[in-house]
Amino acid sequence: MISDFAARRQTLWVQLIAFLLVLLSAGYAQAADPLPSWNDGAAKSAIIDYVTKVATPGSTAFVPVEERIAVFDNDGTLWPENPMPFQMAYAVDQAKQMAAKDPKLAENPMIKALIADDWDTLMAAPHHQGILDIVALTHAGMTVDEFRQQVEDWMKTARHPRFKVGYDQLTYQPMQEVLAYFRANGFRTYIVSGGGADFMRVWSQRVYGIPPAQVVGSTTKVVYELRDSGPVLVKTMDNLVVDDKAGKPAGIHEFIGERPIAVFGNSDGDKEMLEYGTIANPLPSLGVIIHHTDGVREYQYDVNPKSSGTLVEALKEAPSRGWTVVSMKDDWKTIFAPK
Amino acid sequence: MISDFAARRQTLWVQLIAFLLVLLSAGYAQAADPLPSWNDGAAKSAIIDYVTKVATPGSTAFVPVEERIAVFDNDGTLWPENPMPFQMAYAVDQAKQMAAKDPKLAENPMIKALIADDWDTLMAAPHHQGILDIVALTHAGMTVDEFRQQVEDWMKTARHPRFKVGYDQLTYQPMQEVLAYFRANGFRTYIVSGGGADFMRVWSQRVYGIPPAQVVGSTTKVVYELRDSGPVLVKTMDNLVVDDKAGKPAGIHEFIGERPIAVFGNSDGDKEMLEYGTIANPLPSLGVIIHHTDGVREYQYDVNPKSSGTLVEALKEAPSRGWTVVSMKDDWKTIFAPK
Repeated sequence: MISDFAARRQTLWVQLIAFLLVLLSAGYAQAADPLPSWNDGAAKSAIIDYVTKVATPGSTAFVPVEERIAVFDNDGTLWPENPMPFQMAYAVDQAKQMAAKDPKLAENPMIKALIADDWDTLMAAPHHQGILDIVALTHAGMTVDEFRQQVEDWMKTARHPRFKVGYDQLTYQPMQEVLAYFRANGFRTYIVSGGGADFMRVWSQRVYGIPPAQVVGSTTKVVYELRDSGPVLVKTMDNLVVDDKAGKPAGIHEFIGERPIAVFGNSDGDKEMLEYGTIANPLPSLGVIIHHTDGVREYQYDVNPKSSGTLVEALKEAPSRGWTVVSMKDDWKTIFAPK
Repeated sequence: MISDFAARRQTLWVQLIAFLLVLLSAGYAQAADPLPSWNDGAAKSAIIDYVTKVATPGSTAFVPVEERIAVFDNDGTLWPENPMPFQMAYAVDQAKQMAAKDPKLAENPMIKALIADDWDTLMAAPHHQGILDIVALTHAGMTVDEFRQQVEDWMKTARHPRFKVGYDQLTYQPMQEVLAYFRANGFRTYIVSGGGADFMRVWSQRVYGIPPAQVVGSTTKVVYELRDSGPVLVKTMDNLVVDDKAGKPAGIHEFIGERPIAVFGNSDGDKEMLEYGTIANPLPSLGVIIHHTDGVREYQYDVNPKSSGTLVEALKEAPSRGWTVVSMKDDWKTIFAPK
């Protein structure tokens, strides 16, 4: 009897300790702030409340893990788009470098204007010919492996003109926390951006923890060739599909094949994607707009952006759609990831 | 002292039992055949040896789990493509059903020929117009949700003319085992097929355990609309991109963004994809061709297939490329998954 009692007492102790451990770990999980770079406020609460309710088993808003898909615009949402989108900065640097090595390239008046930093001429060319010529020179005619190497080399050496660090050092720390927080709660995180898929896939894993297959971007046709050295894919300018505005829901359908339930954007280019994720979605959804309100720490723009990033229509729609608008000035403690 | 000894003895017993359990489970894992529907032979060995060497830490051929990408053709590789590709059977059934409801559709001579089962007229039309008209009628003009529902309804009711079961009951059991075996060893498994992505994504998860985002197929443009009922994507016939032959490596690049290391196909339409995965790949690779040699249990074809599935060039290349050729007659114990 006594040994029986002792055994039972021991069992009770084990159960009590296990129970305390569960309480402690639950308490710790509650206490740890998943978004430490966000100031307390409506935006932060909206994000945390949403993730908590869809990821908590038994919650009426619970969403099975297979259906937890979150999509993020890149330029202006995960990193800046000023003084120009970073991919355009790449194209400009690369075109200048190519023209320095091969003077004949300057026979193209657009490349000549670029070398002279004559942006008035470049932007005045009809049908965006200035930009297209620069993009064609730097984004087509090479294999995808050669392009990848060129982007990697540039990313190692190029410096942002204002912040004087590598472009990939300029991701928004609050959004890095959002990406990690969503993934920790079973979400698949996708980039859905007007930027080139081939450009973003070079560094998406390293910079955001997002693998190439989860990057949806603008594409052009690649052509397969079996060379003596092995198979290659050559980049062309044919069949350009721009992953912007109404192209974003189409791109999401084509690449992911399912509707997202959480959508993060910052411009009118993200409006249709925000609608697609949040209007009449049978699953609980979240729409978030990053509003560039901080001219001191970053850039302030919406109606008249310096480069891309016009935000008028989506901002107007936000209240009626229930989209959360994040003020970078007020909602973010820090802008960039610490060096 | 005695109680000390008793405690130590108990610990030793626990350790011994744990050790025996480890031995037993290791023995079980070795003994369990991952491909029970395959006869022992060169093909089965090649597949198991490959997976073992790339997935064993410390092996000289070890491949990190992020880079374990396996791609599978669908028609003729994971399920039959006779008497016609199953998606074509869908289009035919659906077009006939639509024409029965709307007699005006028969004003199109191709639809009229279809209703009369006049395949000579259909196939004789220049530029594949017969097939294209049937595909356009059944694959464009509706929303992606409407299309999904139509495919689901068809899959529930349609029966294969020879095997008298639903088409999704005709997956190859040996290939289901390969899919499971690769995934159990950390591979991401993708379908890369000439079939329509929208068609395959309806049932890929249920039938193969492959989620929509891991299905690469032929695509056409979808158009975003915000209707009163909510956002929709309307299927069109524009911008057709055929995921076959040289289109397969291009599709893999566009959708996955990385080279596969294991490639399974069955026809010349898979030749470029086999080359892309296995020639001059810095990682250890595997190429496998499913050869339709079993006219009794399935269909026998290569040079002159009844529908799709010509296999001449890829078969010729196989020995010099080191591709494994699977004879369905000799290498597979069973063809179809048990009912």
